[in-house]
Amino acid sequence: MAADPFDELLEALRCLPGVGARSAQRMALELLERDRDGGRRLARALETAMRDIQRCASCRNFTASEHCRICRDDRRSDRVICAVESPADVLAIEQATGFDGRYFVLLGRLSPLDGIGPEDLGLDLLEARLSDAAVEELIIATNTTVEGEATAYYLREMADRHDVRVSRLAQGVPLGGELEHTDRSTLAHAFASRLPLAGS
Amino acid sequence: MAADPFDELLEALRCLPGVGARSAQRMALELLERDRDGGRRLARALETAMRDIQRCASCRNFTASEHCRICRDDRRSDRVICAVESPADVLAIEQATGFDGRYFVLLGRLSPLDGIGPEDLGLDLLEARLSDAAVEELIIATNTTVEGEATAYYLREMADRHDVRVSRLAQGVPLGGELEHTDRSTLAHAFASRLPLAGS
Ligand SMILES: [Zn+2]
Ligand SMILES: [Zn+2]
Repeated sequence: MAADPFDELLEALRCLPGVGARSAQRMALELLERDRDGGRRLARALETAMRDIQRCASCRNFTASEHCRICRDDRRSDRVICAVESPADVLAIEQATGFDGRYFVLLGRLSPLDGIGPEDLGLDLLEARLSDAAVEELIIATNTTVEGEATAYYLREMADRHDVRVSRLAQGVPLGGELEHTDRSTLAHAFASRLPLAGS
Repeated sequence: MAADPFDELLEALRCLPGVGARSAQRMALELLERDRDGGRRLARALETAMRDIQRCASCRNFTASEHCRICRDDRRSDRVICAVESPADVLAIEQATGFDGRYFVLLGRLSPLDGIGPEDLGLDLLEARLSDAAVEELIIATNTTVEGEATAYYLREMADRHDVRVSRLAQGVPLGGELEHTDRSTLAHAFASRLPLAGS
């Protein structure tokens, strides 16, 4: 016999981050009692997103096309690439700053202990992009954690090999913090006052 | 051109109570990055629940069958009916107490100012159940708000007409509070020490 649809809904809602037994219950009842159209719309949106959203072929951000909206936008500059750890960081920078260059989404950070090496971060793809003569600057916007810093160091060496100028977000991003959770104005300030790394 | 699947997912997630722009983003990225199976499972569960879950024909609780699991359970007693405002209250009482009788879910409370009268709470259905000779007690577990108390008063008069004993949850449920948000032990205590209403 199939699971009860209500229990199954409670169980399934708990795959959402931050949703425990109690909020799952509240969500299920709210949809059933007051917003079945919203529930059906969410079902369709999830289905479509899980099926169609893949990695952008040039920057590895999420997109339902071969290339993402930012990579396809002709009005943006090819001279600057901003490397970030996750798609959430792209959204945060887009919302907080007037940056009009391109991105590269690492989808992680170097972490030898967890077996995460350069190939897992698509660094061959990034290296190919850095070798394009149009690229003048790489902004390294990895998190200011130990692994984020190690990744930044690795990216800097790579950019040096291709004579691409390197900058890192200015102090202002809290040490040990996650970019994604930085408030907008701190992030905007740090982005605007980014400094060239010594020696590049 | 159709909306971007990622934006559409963000938008759709916000129909969930307590989910703002930021948590919608976190949820969407988490599912896309780490749990697409969970996302697909949630899509199916929502679809099924929104389509199949209806009101129980005897107690008005949510169910995917004609009669809910509690109403179908032969081991439960027909002698006591507990009237609550919402399906969430049924879940709360089931989880906190050893109650083994039946329920009646009002799906609201009397509120003449909002145009909510007895017919909106299915009180004809409840009256039919109270007229069954097997029923000896009606536990009124409406919230201790003004409207919950007005509803309790109305239910009590109805039970009196059918010679059904009436009880109300004991003090312990915080005044002005919502049953659904009461902690388990307070709710269990109040449920166990319910008192007959004077005159019934
Ligand atoms: Zn892209
Ligand atoms: Zn029922």
